[in-house]
Amino acid sequence: MTREVTLREVGLRDGLQSIATFVPTADKLAWIRQEAAAGVAEIEVTSYVPPKLLPQFVDAAEVTLGALQIPDLMVAALVPNTRGAQRGLELGVHKINFVMSVSETHNMKNVRRSREDSLADFRTMAQLVREQASRPILCGGLATALGCSYEGDVPVDDVVRYAVALVEAGADELIVPDTVGYANPALVRRVFKAVLAEVGDLPVAAHFHDTRGTGLANLLAALDCGVRAFDASLGGLGGCPFAPGATGNIVMEDAAYMLESMGVDTGIDLDALLALRPLLQAALPDVTLYGGLARAGLPRGFVAARAALAA
Amino acid sequence: MTREVTLREVGLRDGLQSIATFVPTADKLAWIRQEAAAGVAEIEVTSYVPPKLLPQFVDAAEVTLGALQIPDLMVAALVPNTRGAQRGLELGVHKINFVMSVSETHNMKNVRRSREDSLADFRTMAQLVREQASRPILCGGLATALGCSYEGDVPVDDVVRYAVALVEAGADELIVPDTVGYANPALVRRVFKAVLAEVGDLPVAAHFHDTRGTGLANLLAALDCGVRAFDASLGGLGGCPFAPGATGNIVMEDAAYMLESMGVDTGIDLDALLALRPLLQAALPDVTLYGGLARAGLPRGFVAARAALAA
Repeated sequence: MTREVTLREVGLRDGLQSIATFVPTADKLAWIRQEAAAGVAEIEVTSYVPPKLLPQFVDAAEVTLGALQIPDLMVAALVPNTRGAQRGLELGVHKINFVMSVSETHNMKNVRRSREDSLADFRTMAQLVREQASRPILCGGLATALGCSYEGDVPVDDVVRYAVALVEAGADELIVPDTVGYANPALVRRVFKAVLAEVGDLPVAAHFHDTRGTGLANLLAALDCGVRAFDASLGGLGGCPFAPGATGNIVMEDAAYMLESMGVDTGIDLDALLALRPLLQAALPDVTLYGGLARAGLPRGFVAARAALAA
Repeated sequence: MTREVTLREVGLRDGLQSIATFVPTADKLAWIRQEAAAGVAEIEVTSYVPPKLLPQFVDAAEVTLGALQIPDLMVAALVPNTRGAQRGLELGVHKINFVMSVSETHNMKNVRRSREDSLADFRTMAQLVREQASRPILCGGLATALGCSYEGDVPVDDVVRYAVALVEAGADELIVPDTVGYANPALVRRVFKAVLAEVGDLPVAAHFHDTRGTGLANLLAALDCGVRAFDASLGGLGGCPFAPGATGNIVMEDAAYMLESMGVDTGIDLDALLALRPLLQAALPDVTLYGGLARAGLPRGFVAARAALAA
């Protein structure tokens, strides 16, 4: 049986990037290994950025090479530019996640160049990737597609325009992230329907934060639109360490539980996933881990999707 | 403009019933008054149960009479049996919320009688209510309709059967609660579609807990089915005080935010709602209040539904 929905762990990148603590490489690799063993099929393991900007990722090479040893795991990494992509190609990463912002202001603040410059760089990157004998999957990301903390609302037309531009430039798939946690289910439906209508069969993933409690509702809205890949992080890792309770990505355990309880196969073993939390808490003792499933446990008589479908 | 969705505060009943601390009557009335002023149009203010069972509600009469002084507020109270309904009639409460469990085991544990005995009592209650010159609205509740901590899954056919039985007995409206936090969006859709198909135009409300993080996703699923009234509690009050992080009802602030951000008018002023939290925290200093909106604030450029629709 194939999984119906893929949940992708991004805590090692999106989670750790907001936490000053350096997690030792061995702990990162143990996390990746055990989460892969729990059935998480794709993990964004690191970010290829200059270590002086984000020292959390100084071990990007070791983490990538270690993760690539794990059978059947799709190993992804974030890149802000072609230089990052080159590192990914050298290391042999399976998937390169490029991200630009649909909001001009956010793109300027985040990567200090215009959207058009980011797009031009993506074209270079895509060309470089195409030249490889054994090439990685190239994913184009549309940060702030669901709202921007500088500009507020982001026009859906702009999202669609840059989605199409990324595909024309050579993206194999897209990701639409709610970068700053502004999304609501109605907006999610508008944006994903508009993007999906333009890109045909190209896979489009979603990336939500649970900043205002609507993370899983947004996931449901995107699922209803046909989205079949979602980012999440173990324990809801992420957010700002100086804002208590400001959760990061949607909680992997709760997202997997919700989907499995709906009869949607994620391929994930919920008990194995929950068993991973102590490892993460030990690596980050000062960080609060989130999650309803972890505190409440599975409902009585709960049957995972795989078993329910077979019954 | 009329509100499209009614969010009903149940923290004074469902929230306080799980908290040993007695909240002074004056604090309860200040909470009710200020939340009504923030635009919450219906509040379940207390429960008519013997004070020896739930001393939190020893002031049920004063709270009811105080709440009835507030203009335009629908004042509701929970009753487990006809004796409770009689108290409500004497006090002049606007709405009587009767609850029985669809799960036989849960009903036996909760009110020490069979479902059929509860139903028979409801028929007596409905007859009594009908005899009043100025009669309250009578709401029939179907506890454990979305799962039972004793029996696990609850057959949808049983939910529909008791829904129809409550309507035939004289319920003016129904409420379908996820009593123990087992619901998922797929189940919500199955149950609400089945119930709504049988009861015609009769209002059917939903009551969700956020036990496993899926509360607002369940709300969205029910909203999609046509449900237009939802229970919630300020700060997510409720759950078990001995289980840290075990939230109770869905968070009123986040539910209102999600709906307003979707362009659904709740009639609620989000800032006024948030301004209420310190009052609640002062009354219950040892209780953790939940809520994403409270920690993150409104998105930049956020426009409430009422204003957005007028624009």
